[in-house]
Amino acid sequence: MKFGGPSVGSLERIRASAALVAAECARGDRVAVVVSAMAGETDRLLSLAGQLGFGLGDEETDVVLTAGEQISAALMSMALAESGLTARSFLGWQARIRTDGPPGAARISGLDASPFRTAMEAGAIPVMAGYQGASRDERLRTLGRGGTDLSAVALAAAIGAECDIYTDVDGVFTTDPRIEPKARRIDKISYDEMLELAAQGAKVLQTRSAEFAKARSVPLRVLSSFAEPGQSEGTMIMQAEDIAERRIVSGIAYARDQARIALRGLSSEPGAAAAIFGGLAEADIGIDMIVQSPASESGRTNLEFTIDRRDLDKALVRIGESDARDVLSETGLAKVSVVGLGLNRRADVARILYAALGQEGIAIRTVSTSEIKISVLVSDAYTELALRSLHTAYGLDAA
Amino acid sequence: MKFGGPSVGSLERIRASAALVAAECARGDRVAVVVSAMAGETDRLLSLAGQLGFGLGDEETDVVLTAGEQISAALMSMALAESGLTARSFLGWQARIRTDGPPGAARISGLDASPFRTAMEAGAIPVMAGYQGASRDERLRTLGRGGTDLSAVALAAAIGAECDIYTDVDGVFTTDPRIEPKARRIDKISYDEMLELAAQGAKVLQTRSAEFAKARSVPLRVLSSFAEPGQSEGTMIMQAEDIAERRIVSGIAYARDQARIALRGLSSEPGAAAAIFGGLAEADIGIDMIVQSPASESGRTNLEFTIDRRDLDKALVRIGESDARDVLSETGLAKVSVVGLGLNRRADVARILYAALGQEGIAIRTVSTSEIKISVLVSDAYTELALRSLHTAYGLDAA
Repeated sequence: MKFGGPSVGSLERIRASAALVAAECARGDRVAVVVSAMAGETDRLLSLAGQLGFGLGDEETDVVLTAGEQISAALMSMALAESGLTARSFLGWQARIRTDGPPGAARISGLDASPFRTAMEAGAIPVMAGYQGASRDERLRTLGRGGTDLSAVALAAAIGAECDIYTDVDGVFTTDPRIEPKARRIDKISYDEMLELAAQGAKVLQTRSAEFAKARSVPLRVLSSFAEPGQSEGTMIMQAEDIAERRIVSGIAYARDQARIALRGLSSEPGAAAAIFGGLAEADIGIDMIVQSPASESGRTNLEFTIDRRDLDKALVRIGESDARDVLSETGLAKVSVVGLGLNRRADVARILYAALGQEGIAIRTVSTSEIKISVLVSDAYTELALRSLHTAYGLDAA
Repeated sequence: MKFGGPSVGSLERIRASAALVAAECARGDRVAVVVSAMAGETDRLLSLAGQLGFGLGDEETDVVLTAGEQISAALMSMALAESGLTARSFLGWQARIRTDGPPGAARISGLDASPFRTAMEAGAIPVMAGYQGASRDERLRTLGRGGTDLSAVALAAAIGAECDIYTDVDGVFTTDPRIEPKARRIDKISYDEMLELAAQGAKVLQTRSAEFAKARSVPLRVLSSFAEPGQSEGTMIMQAEDIAERRIVSGIAYARDQARIALRGLSSEPGAAAAIFGGLAEADIGIDMIVQSPASESGRTNLEFTIDRRDLDKALVRIGESDARDVLSETGLAKVSVVGLGLNRRADVARILYAALGQEGIAIRTVSTSEIKISVLVSDAYTELALRSLHTAYGLDAA
């Protein structure tokens, strides 16, 4: 049972989450718990470090940040004791969570499950501080965004458990319910669809944890800690084969603050595009929605792609070194993505997309497809309208 | 260089303390730093634990509390980096600070200085989180009140360094300057006098760290982090033999909130008093100022002693089981203590005491003496008057 920041955001929330653990134990399940820092605490600590000129990626920042989960793990152990259960906290280093990779974005390379097994066999509930581990030279490391989900999935894999991710929503929805009130909770979804939804902007689960869960076949469930015990059904995330009734489209995700860069008249030699993407990769800029087409001038090509708005200035500096005739950039764009396992087998999926957006007069700037998703780039002002019209067109609206 | 809570109470204070470290380094000294939690943080964390029914002495409380020093150690490392120095934080477990004893009041049983030596030889300043260590079974432990002083003294002993304790006052004073404006800073004081002043109520240093420093001959200095570099002279605490000019009286300490218990007509069999003190020790109640005298009834004795006011109810329950004819208790008392290495050789020390207090009409309830101190119990209302008149009588007033 993993509890995110909002689920341990106050002593009241910690008590409510402890009650969910107690209910699970009362049903006869053996439980291990993983917690995030109390909501707001990571930002507070990050701001202290920031005022001293340190940020994510610095070793000492990780020492500051890991204190957040340390505190909530101990408080959760106390709340469980208050409910009459036996519990003990485990920090990342105590759980022998070994990490590789840089501070602020480390990867889990090992986890020793034996202390957890020992604790659980003795009838105690281990409560692990999420988001943290230690490097080979014993420095504290954090695991980057969504790190506590990753800690939870890694622990579940190590002890052979199912992994319930408690959050402040009742599961994964067909789209953002704040934008489309007719959004429905998804009962079951495949790892791949969940991955794609997360990659396309759904915030409920990070791609890294979904990937890890898929690779290790850890059954995942996303559900709410704000409901009474047993009242949140949540969303099961599992192998596609294990889902009996499959829909063509599972959900619609969106990401705002997209920027589009168009290079006109770039040399069509194979090295030219590679050099550009290599430069952007060096600057740690993620590339999305690549479209390439021949330019009118012979031996030249046009190349377009989207990036996160925040990276635009950095990207344009890098691209300045290319031999493109023209570099255009555009902001104020949003990406809306339709995700579903059935997409690759249905020709009318594209027709529905164009028809629905066309009917609303929404211009499609760029389209990009994969096995299980279609993304369209639209003007940011049309995000909500596009999302709602596609939600209806693909039959996702709640009755 | 050890910095207490007020010296790291805000980012500004951390920066000012880092400047003191930089100045020390600029003088060519190699430095290791030990820090407390930011002022107020330990209370905040303790209150969170308290609201879940946990307090000092619980294992998980220690996990919560140690996060405070973890955060300030990392922030101090950042501030040192900001000053152009190389620094790295060490948590208690990283420094292999092994502890025995219960949570909330553990004792240091071992410390591996090699990581510090390695860091310092590489030109880096190690910044250790104070107040913490780990038990043999790898649980985090805190060292009790004044624990960070103890961490600092233990580290200084292990690396063969002098130990500067930075606080918010300019050193040890002849008495509390808030009560007696004529109080003077003491230049040099012996370990034993410092111990006695601390035991009798002076708050500047805990007895445990002074004891540890004495046992390991660590030269201690108490000075202010609120002065510009080099401006606080502070107080040196050292072997009595190393102090050339010694005064008869070094300082006057006080402790309010004393309670007095008088047992009239207790059986004078040897076991009777032992049983009472045994019972109080079991309840962890400290006994002070014991006076025994024969009772008028044959085979009976009168026994008096003082305890901390907070322990009175608990103590009376324990004493209820004795066979004393009468048990009286009194509160609203304060203890004022005159401390000095010369006390044991001067007969007129007692005369001065009785004369000074008599002149002000202050009744002495109980007197208790040791080699280097005389304590008197007076009505709490007379605390300041007694302190000031003794300060003058023993020639301690600043010119």
